[in-house]
Amino acid sequence: MKANYTAIDGGVTAPLGFRAGAVYVGVKSRKKHKPDLAMLVSDRPCASAALFTTNRFCAAPVTLDREILKKGRARAIVVNSGNANAGTGERGLRDAKAIETEAERLLGLGEDEVFVCSTGVIGAYLPTQKILDGMRRIVPDLSPDKGSDAAWAICTTDRVRKEASYELALSGGTVRVGAMAKGSGMIHPNMATMLLYLTSDVRAEASDLQQMLSAAADKSFHMCTVDGDTSTNDSAFLLANGASGVSLATGADRAAFASLITDVCVDMAKRIASDGEGATHLIEVHACGLPTERDARLVAKSVAGSTLFKAAVSGRDANWGRIMAAAGYSGADVDPAHADCVLRSAAGEVQVMSDGFGVDFDEELAAKVLSEHDITVIVRFRQGDGEATAWGCDLTREYVRINGDWRT
Amino acid sequence: MKANYTAIDGGVTAPLGFRAGAVYVGVKSRKKHKPDLAMLVSDRPCASAALFTTNRFCAAPVTLDREILKKGRARAIVVNSGNANAGTGERGLRDAKAIETEAERLLGLGEDEVFVCSTGVIGAYLPTQKILDGMRRIVPDLSPDKGSDAAWAICTTDRVRKEASYELALSGGTVRVGAMAKGSGMIHPNMATMLLYLTSDVRAEASDLQQMLSAAADKSFHMCTVDGDTSTNDSAFLLANGASGVSLATGADRAAFASLITDVCVDMAKRIASDGEGATHLIEVHACGLPTERDARLVAKSVAGSTLFKAAVSGRDANWGRIMAAAGYSGADVDPAHADCVLRSAAGEVQVMSDGFGVDFDEELAAKVLSEHDITVIVRFRQGDGEATAWGCDLTREYVRINGDWRT
Repeated sequence: MKANYTAIDGGVTAPLGFRAGAVYVGVKSRKKHKPDLAMLVSDRPCASAALFTTNRFCAAPVTLDREILKKGRARAIVVNSGNANAGTGERGLRDAKAIETEAERLLGLGEDEVFVCSTGVIGAYLPTQKILDGMRRIVPDLSPDKGSDAAWAICTTDRVRKEASYELALSGGTVRVGAMAKGSGMIHPNMATMLLYLTSDVRAEASDLQQMLSAAADKSFHMCTVDGDTSTNDSAFLLANGASGVSLATGADRAAFASLITDVCVDMAKRIASDGEGATHLIEVHACGLPTERDARLVAKSVAGSTLFKAAVSGRDANWGRIMAAAGYSGADVDPAHADCVLRSAAGEVQVMSDGFGVDFDEELAAKVLSEHDITVIVRFRQGDGEATAWGCDLTREYVRINGDWRT
Repeated sequence: MKANYTAIDGGVTAPLGFRAGAVYVGVKSRKKHKPDLAMLVSDRPCASAALFTTNRFCAAPVTLDREILKKGRARAIVVNSGNANAGTGERGLRDAKAIETEAERLLGLGEDEVFVCSTGVIGAYLPTQKILDGMRRIVPDLSPDKGSDAAWAICTTDRVRKEASYELALSGGTVRVGAMAKGSGMIHPNMATMLLYLTSDVRAEASDLQQMLSAAADKSFHMCTVDGDTSTNDSAFLLANGASGVSLATGADRAAFASLITDVCVDMAKRIASDGEGATHLIEVHACGLPTERDARLVAKSVAGSTLFKAAVSGRDANWGRIMAAAGYSGADVDPAHADCVLRSAAGEVQVMSDGFGVDFDEELAAKVLSEHDITVIVRFRQGDGEATAWGCDLTREYVRINGDWRT
């Protein structure tokens, strides 16, 4: 099903009733004074859904936001980059709470109405006063035109900001969806932290939104790997304020909206993988013909996450042995004796394995296929209808430099 | 319990009744004519145990050896390096069988008496004739003095050969254990293949040996990671020919022998991690204070395998946030709010985390601790008695070069 939507300008503030703002407060010293504090505010209550990291060692703001989500009253978000407020114990929680409380005061909101997010270095205390001061500068200038500023502020050293917005025709009228995300293109990271913010002016129930966000994450962020390290701060939010007056009235409306949310999440997941630390390739892995979808997901993720295959791609080496080995150890029910493997990009397509063993393929063509930035690996089995897609990036010396040399 | 054993010379042929030999046959073209074909032969039948890769996409020799193990008659092993005979379908199986059959003929043995192993590039057919010719050159010169030659022949481009041998006093007399292994220090690898061969002149039952080898692997190879990619060819063998006339007569004998097998496997696992591709550090991770041993194993393996932490170590960065994050996502039941973390090496010890959050530690000392080749990470929880140790190596730009550039 293809939803009836079109891209529009505006990013996370494209939906009616959302404003944003961003400033530089100096959370950590930088050479480049990129904004590092963002606020996103709805002019009315929102139905909210959220997903948080499964890491037991989670950051203070994640602990706080889990509670705020339960209250169901949140309508604003504060995000700082440069410091993750993780591994900071009780003081970290107090700092996050202080930010929430001051944001509520500045915005004239009640308790539990603001989510707080942090991303950056683990194990350092937040410069809370700087953040409180920064919010005082942001609030008077909040604007529907500043979604893109916010999208830049939440980045640490991602090479590009990641935002999108769409208009969707429903039975009762038009609604909008906005998105911003940060990934893992940091120069001084402690974590490949992922943050995602989705906004909409649709009128919807929080429980519906939660279901849609979870389903979308299953197809997107849960299928996206940069280095296999799960962050302490990963968070995804979907806030719908109903400002359009248009609700999800019919089954078709719900399906169309859910489909848009999934498409936006897949798009963001691809951008995060593409902008992975040190990455020079976006790798899409499509596994099909498996007994179940679960098997296909295991195979796709295993290949996309294989250190050896990722290193091969950085060297433009059509090393199908590593692809099949990763499929073999994925834990999926695979029968490699009847597997095919194809590499594809804008430069062409080359089959490297057929019916379980190697094809004498054109090495020159294969190198050309792998010279493109976006490459697709297709691993096809003959055991059933299960299929899935995962995204990752190549492993480069630059990744090791970024993550090995930052304090030396 | 510390077993009553001492190191002796001789490697895999130190136990009575074992001979070995190795030659260069040119399995693949090399600049350096290192031997690439080895044979190991017992002068009498052996009780055998073996463990094989769990990868579904396993190599032809693994398929063959599984059958030979079942027959329980094997007493010799042929190993070639340079070509894994994986992804080679029916022809690969025929090649492996041809090697087995010719070895049996040359050695005057019956059917199913020879294991065949291969390691190297995936997806290329074996130069079988070269291997058959090579065996004809090895057999006349098999000798108890050539264990070390065999240990070198099974390496691809490991930087060092990995062998050991010990003498153990049992109630009925002395027995010997020999070992050789290959790891993942290959320059032209398709896989970080692990091979292990243990020999002994003890008199023992195959089922006992199988139990001991499995238990030893749980504490060693299953706790050892270089890059998280499970090979298509991983195989470990334990062959005992009884030539000493000494059996495992008492419970203490069995315990002492089992303990020696575990110690040898741990030693080999550490050498494999230490000689990991591009590695400049051996990382030992000790997790303790967990609710169960299973939890401790999960934590230790997760930290040892964390791409981000491995990269930090290559940069000598005491990045404890990455250690705790890896513990947090390990799947273990961990309470990070009461965790300690210590880094230790010959240069000293530094506590970087205490009771759940960061210590203001001496960065200079930490860098000194991490400048040693062998470093230990201790992650201590306060939830129980579960403990475990895992081994890994750092992630360097050299790893990416080795695995990215080999065909370009």
